This record gives sequence, C-alpha cells and structure tokens, in this order.
Amino acid sequence: MCVVFDLKKTIALRDWGSWIRKKGWRFVIGVGKDKEKREEFPASQVEMILIGGSSSISSSALQLAVEKRIPVFFTYPSGYPYAALFPMVSTGSARTRMEQYLSRLDDRGLKLAVAFAEGKLLNQYYLLRTFIRYRMKRNKDLAKYLNERADEIKKALRELRKIQAESLDFGLRSKLMNIEGRGAEAYWEAISQLVPSKFGPFRREKRGAKDVVNSLLNFGYGFLLARVTTSLFYVGLDPYAGYLHVDRAGRESLSLDLMEEFRQQAVDRVVLRLISTKQIGPDAVDEEGQIKNQPLSILLDALEERMHNYVYFSGRKMKLNTAIKMQARRIVQHILRTKSYSPFYLRY
Amino acid sequence: MCVVFDLKKTIALRDWGSWIRKKGWRFVIGVGKDKEKREEFPASQVEMILIGGSSSISSSALQLAVEKRIPVFFTYPSGYPYAALFPMVSTGSARTRMEQYLSRLDDRGLKLAVAFAEGKLLNQYYLLRTFIRYRMKRNKDLAKYLNERADEIKKALRELRKIQAESLDFGLRSKLMNIEGRGAEAYWEAISQLVPSKFGPFRREKRGAKDVVNSLLNFGYGFLLARVTTSLFYVGLDPYAGYLHVDRAGRESLSLDLMEEFRQQAVDRVVLRLISTKQIGPDAVDEEGQIKNQPLSILLDALEERMHNYVYFSGRKMKLNTAIKMQARRIVQHILRTKSYSPFYLRY
Repeated sequence: MCVVFDLKKTIALRDWGSWIRKKGWRFVIGVGKDKEKREEFPASQVEMILIGGSSSISSSALQLAVEKRIPVFFTYPSGYPYAALFPMVSTGSARTRMEQYLSRLDDRGLKLAVAFAEGKLLNQYYLLRTFIRYRMKRNKDLAKYLNERADEIKKALRELRKIQAESLDFGLRSKLMNIEGRGAEAYWEAISQLVPSKFGPFRREKRGAKDVVNSLLNFGYGFLLARVTTSLFYVGLDPYAGYLHVDRAGRESLSLDLMEEFRQQAVDRVVLRLISTKQIGPDAVDEEGQIKNQPLSILLDALEERMHNYVYFSGRKMKLNTAIKMQARRIVQHILRTKSYSPFYLRY
Repeated sequence: MCVVFDLKKTIALRDWGSWIRKKGWRFVIGVGKDKEKREEFPASQVEMILIGGSSSISSSALQLAVEKRIPVFFTYPSGYPYAALFPMVSTGSARTRMEQYLSRLDDRGLKLAVAFAEGKLLNQYYLLRTFIRYRMKRNKDLAKYLNERADEIKKALRELRKIQAESLDFGLRSKLMNIEGRGAEAYWEAISQLVPSKFGPFRREKRGAKDVVNSLLNFGYGFLLARVTTSLFYVGLDPYAGYLHVDRAGRESLSLDLMEEFRQQAVDRVVLRLISTKQIGPDAVDEEGQIKNQPLSILLDALEERMHNYVYFSGRKMKLNTAIKMQARRIVQHILRTKSYSPFYLRY
C-alpha cells in the first residue's frame, strides 16, 4: 500500500513507491505508476518536505528545494528526523555563532535557559487552565484534580522566577532541569486524565513508545523539531549548541530548547483534540507502534493547520509558524544584546 | 543516455534514470530497468556518495548512508556541490566550535591563515619543480620559463614568511590574499604552458568556464570540496567559519581554506596527467561546458585513485585522503592549543 500526503504547505512522503520529482518550478508527487494519485505543487507554495518510509526523491527535486530554501528532512517512521539536507552556502554570520557560544558562559545564556523553561511551564499551566474551563461543570472531581496539578506547575514557576545567579553553571542547570521535571510530572498526570479511557491508561513515554497517544505525540514532536531546526538554521544559529539542554552531547540541543515553548500549543493540543473528537481512534497504530496511514494523514493535516492558525503573541496577531521564526530571530537579538528575550506562551 | 559510475570508494550518480537504493546493508545502483548495469556495494566499502544530474535516491539508501556516516553530496553538472545531507546528530563538541570562532580574533587564526597560504604556495612551487625536472632536457626554453615562474612563487613565499602580526585583521588578510594572488598568477602562467596545444590557449577560469581544462579542474575542486567539508564536519568544525577566506560571506570558507593545501596534489596533477597522456582529449566537453560521460568517468576514477595514493607527510606514509582527515583534526588541535598547525605539502 502506498500513501502520499499532500498538505497545504508541507509535502510528506511515506511508504513504498511514493516519489517526488521536479517539473519546471513545481514538485510532482506520486505513487508508483498510479496516475490518479499524481499531484503537482508550485515550489512557491511548499514550506517543508518530509521524507519518511520507503519513498524516493529525484536529485532535481532536491536541487529545486535547495534553490527555493525549502528544508528537506528525512524521518524515521516515528516522525523523528534523522537527517536534513542543508545547502552548502550558509546563512547568518559567523559573528552570530561566535556570540552564541560565548553567551553559554554568561548572563545571556542564563536568561535564555530560564526563559525556555519558563515558556514551557507557562504553556503547560495555561493549556491545563483551558481544559479545566471546559470541564468545570461537567466533571467537578476532574476539574479539581486538574486544578491541583496546575497549581503544582505554578509552584514550579514561582521557584523558577526566584532563581538568582550570574551565569549558567552545572549546578544551576540541574536546578532548572529539576524544576522543569516537577512541572512536567504534574502536567502529564493531568493530561493522562484527559485521554479518553478507550485508549487505555496513559503514561507519557518518549521514543520507543508503542501506544497510540505517545506515538502521536512523538510524531508531532519530530514534526516540530524539523520546523524549529529550520528556523534556527536560517537565522544562522548552530542548532547543536543549546543552553538548557547543553549536556545532551550530539543532540540538536538548541532546537530542543526552543521547542520547549511550542510543544504544548503546536503538538499536545492538536493530539488531544484529535483523540477527544474521535478523529483518531485507539486502533491508529500497528503492533510496532507505527501510526497507520489514514490516521497519520489526519495528524499531519492537523499539525500543519495548527502551524497556520493565528495566535496573539508579543502584541500582535501572527501565525504560530511565524512565532517560531520570530523566536529564532529573537534568540539572535538577545545574544547580540540588541533586545532581551521573552518566551512564547499563549494565555487563553 | 545514462551512466552510473562505480569507483573503489565513491558512488557517483549522474544523468537520466540512474538511481540508488538499499538492499540489506548494501547500496544497489542502476540505470532505469537495465539489469546489466545494476551493481551492488556493501555499505562498508563506500566512502562518499555524489549525486548529480537527474538521478534519484531512495530514502532508505539515504538512511543507510547516514547510519554508516557516509557523506552524501548533491552536485551541479560542473561537479560543484550545492547541498549536503547531514545527520541530525552532531559530532565534535560545542567547545571546539566556540574556540574556532574565538581563534579568528587572535594569534591562532593568524597562524592558520598563514599556514593555508603557505601550503598552497609550497605545493605550487614543488609541483612546478616536478614538471621542470621532466622537461629539463626535452625543452630547455620551457624549463627556463617554468623556472622563472617557480622563482616568483618562491618570492611570494619569502614575503609571506616575513609577515609579522599579532592577529588576523582586515589589512593583514588583504596582504595575505595579495601574496597568494601573485603566487597563483605565476603558477597558472606556468601551467598554461604545460597544457598540450591541441586544447587551445589555456587561461585559468573559475566557475562558468566552458573549455575542457577548466571544466576538469572545476569538477575536481568540487570533488575535493566535498571531501574536505566532510572531514571538517566530522571533527566538529564549522565549515563556514574560515580564516583566510573569512570575507566571502555565505561560503564554506573553512573548507576553502583547507582546500588550498590540497588543490595541486589532489586535482591539478591529476588533470594535467589525464590530458598529457591523452586519456582525456579536447572533445571532452559539450557546448555547455559539461564534461561528457566517458571522460567524466575517467576523471572520477583518477581523482578517486589519487585520494588512495600513498604520500609521505609528517614523518609517515599515508593515503592522500588520510592526510586531509589528519589536517582537519590538526586544525582542532591547533585551536585547542594542544599542537600547532603545519600545512600539508609534498616536496617531490
């Protein structure tokens, strides 16, 4: 069986026999020789290309992507990108990257690490508040439970804000990780109560999970990681040199840092909505934990749609996707000391 | 017409309908449905994959390449790589890259910039001396002319060694570029006399050249650039932050820096031998300046073979290819102040 997904702005290829080629300034995608499944997209309308499963890509399509600055990511079936195609010409200046490294040692890095953690806790808190508001009347016990969890997150947030330090050393980083960990625990305990019971008991698991909800979340984070990494790359930052996640050697730690602010709004919300509204059911993964083609198509559509939703941030209305790009630019401004960094979060 | 080149260690795809797929731990390359042209290579025997022209690659072959750390470059028909596939997990430490940026401002960067220029001049000089030795008896006038050009390079080298400075500022960099430029002028004047007359008058031209000799050289430099960039990437250096070429924004300037030491031995020598021994003739390019399939196959084979030739450097015998990797590691050592850097050159 072959499936090719076509989304508004992201082309995602998957499974046996799907391919992407170039025709003039357009991408043509198809599945084997099946002419009915063939579709064309002008390069100007494509924002990202995700290649997973067993598909194939022509070198001229890759060349078109590079010319048009369309990022191409190669992903595992779980959705986690394992490689990216980068143009041989870099963007941004070496000055930016130099300051990025230096800032890891002083107050700039400290501020960024705290901001990423703060953004994560704020989004976790406000997302839970949103859910509480909807459930207040229907299920008071649940609302009370969620409220307690939200309070724990708020407590972690208060502790975070009390931190006094000069720079980001090892002790401080483990303190931050500890606060973040407590927030995450409360958050996922709350989320587990929001997962419809027909999905079975839910416990958050990272890579390797085989249940529906974790598989959907992990795929969503892979999708988000590709977007965040692209944004960092195009403002000239090194995605591998982070602040909060600096200790995870060999990982794209700055991407992981910036992702913290966006996970809840870009992924968690979307996944919870899809399973609550029954758009994706408990039979969405196979025995290997791989999301089946039809639910994956629904998930990708919803993730993409969410990226193009308008949000109110920093005093103006913008697409969620634009907010990611803006935060990448703001990291640069912060590092160059032209404007200090504030985390992205949505209050409603 | 379709051609797929298979070399000892590099797989190079080119032209319509050629493809690369995965089969177990092997790469399978082929052209359309032609079963006779199909070949398999165990991943362990492949060192680099170059994809040019209009070929296609399967996502599982790319995944195998990433897992086995085999670099994949996408090249223009001229051989110049326009994009590379990089794994999402980085190599080397952020510390290395931080010191790389810092070293651009102090004596470490100065020393490296001078070393790259010195390596280039030394190789130009000694390569000309080799040619002179062969021509001494046959053509005394030519030998005399070559000798004079070699002396000019030596003069530039002496001037380079007289440079006294604390760090690499703008004035110094243009002084270095000026010395290098004078060396290059003498070198290419000499080379132009060594190009067989049936190729017409030769004048060195960079990208865009349409004559045989320049096209062969440019293709060779693209091939070398891919190798050098890979070596830098895998020791954890940022290929975009150079010393000598620092002013060319957006270019892989550290790759260009390190290439200076290897152009003559890895490319120029090979191209001159191929045209002198009539392995490649004056009809090797089409009207667009694109190298035809058969001569390109000969060129790639010869470039690859040269990479695996043994050279005597730094007190021991090693493959030319190993010398490139070693120089990348030595840049790191120099930057971290564990061992100071000396340029690669061959005396014979």
